[in-house]
Amino acid sequence: MKSAIVAIGTELLFGHTVNTNAAYLSQELNELGIDVVYHYTLGDNPDRLKRIVGMASEDCDLIIFTGGLGPTEDDLTKETVCEYLGEPLVYNQEAEERIKKHFERLNLTLSPNNRKQTYVPEHGEIFQNEVGTAPGFAIRKNRKVYACMPGVPGEMKSMWQRSLKPYLMKFEDAAIVSRRVELFGMGESLAETKLMDLISTQTDPTLATYAKQGNVEIRITSKRSTE
Amino acid sequence: MKSAIVAIGTELLFGHTVNTNAAYLSQELNELGIDVVYHYTLGDNPDRLKRIVGMASEDCDLIIFTGGLGPTEDDLTKETVCEYLGEPLVYNQEAEERIKKHFERLNLTLSPNNRKQTYVPEHGEIFQNEVGTAPGFAIRKNRKVYACMPGVPGEMKSMWQRSLKPYLMKFEDAAIVSRRVELFGMGESLAETKLMDLISTQTDPTLATYAKQGNVEIRITSKRSTE
Repeated sequence: MKSAIVAIGTELLFGHTVNTNAAYLSQELNELGIDVVYHYTLGDNPDRLKRIVGMASEDCDLIIFTGGLGPTEDDLTKETVCEYLGEPLVYNQEAEERIKKHFERLNLTLSPNNRKQTYVPEHGEIFQNEVGTAPGFAIRKNRKVYACMPGVPGEMKSMWQRSLKPYLMKFEDAAIVSRRVELFGMGESLAETKLMDLISTQTDPTLATYAKQGNVEIRITSKRSTE
Repeated sequence: MKSAIVAIGTELLFGHTVNTNAAYLSQELNELGIDVVYHYTLGDNPDRLKRIVGMASEDCDLIIFTGGLGPTEDDLTKETVCEYLGEPLVYNQEAEERIKKHFERLNLTLSPNNRKQTYVPEHGEIFQNEVGTAPGFAIRKNRKVYACMPGVPGEMKSMWQRSLKPYLMKFEDAAIVSRRVELFGMGESLAETKLMDLISTQTDPTLATYAKQGNVEIRITSKRSTE
């Protein structure tokens, strides 16, 4: 299974926020044996988002979106992804009750545009938000999974662990085992030269070298079926 | 001027490394008045890289690549970008001398595959690497700039400050001024409702709200020409 992680958020494009969500989800997905082949980041721009969904759909089976599920006018992830998939948005009473309770708990005033967050895709698996207000969801379409989660890291991690991860584990049948070996005192090129016979002939496990600050990492990766 | 930052590196897709390069470059580019509209991350895969270059070229004037300039077999950024641009690679004596000196300084053995790093695009502006071995470069093609830098953050930052930033400043004629205001005790939706008249009518400066953990940020951005 191949996946792409799409982050929607102008704060990432301004560079004021580092995309730690992509790193977190990549680690989690790799542990489930799901390859991550792309990270994308873009702003709240429906046309660009649609082009990225189209591109990711060409060679990924799973596309995870983070961010742009907020209540404000420029939060368009849900609307754009559902429009792309031809999926209608319908009112969800549980989402509304959760949002009301969340605001009561924090002693904040509910404002009219929070109603936007009570709409969810009609045929999606809905992931209620235990930490914030925006619900997430997953939709299966053309044998692919499209999943949306909030961009605030605490909300995303909670939803991943409680909802999306268990949801995905139903589909996945392979596990990856990856080991890292750190080499000191040798450059990447010399390390690769010494390991070339293994690097070019091994198919499982595979070997690859990565230059890091002051050392070289050798990664040995095996993809074995759990069946 | 619109830009895209393309990071090439499997370590990012494994989630073991967070893409701080994209955040650093985004801050720097925004300060120069260059909008950042995409971040992409992918592995050392020439076909995917070509598709991303094609997509980014559709609406960006500047595409910056980080990573994949190493000496090893799977480092293919330079080769792929130059092939896409129809740009031949030629031997560069200064690069070879710098690599030799770098290895002597660190008391490391030069290996045959380091020769790969002595080849640079024939018509590019070459950026010698003051910290590591891989040179970077910028190529102008079809009124767009394509620039490659190493992925190791220390090498990338040094090359950005010494070479690519001064190179880009020759083209740029606008400056952005951005101010952030942090709001506490009010959710994003209420903040947006209160500011809606300014958000929907202002064109310069523009206003936008961003949900953060525990507070809301209002960003006021002005794009004024320095001419």
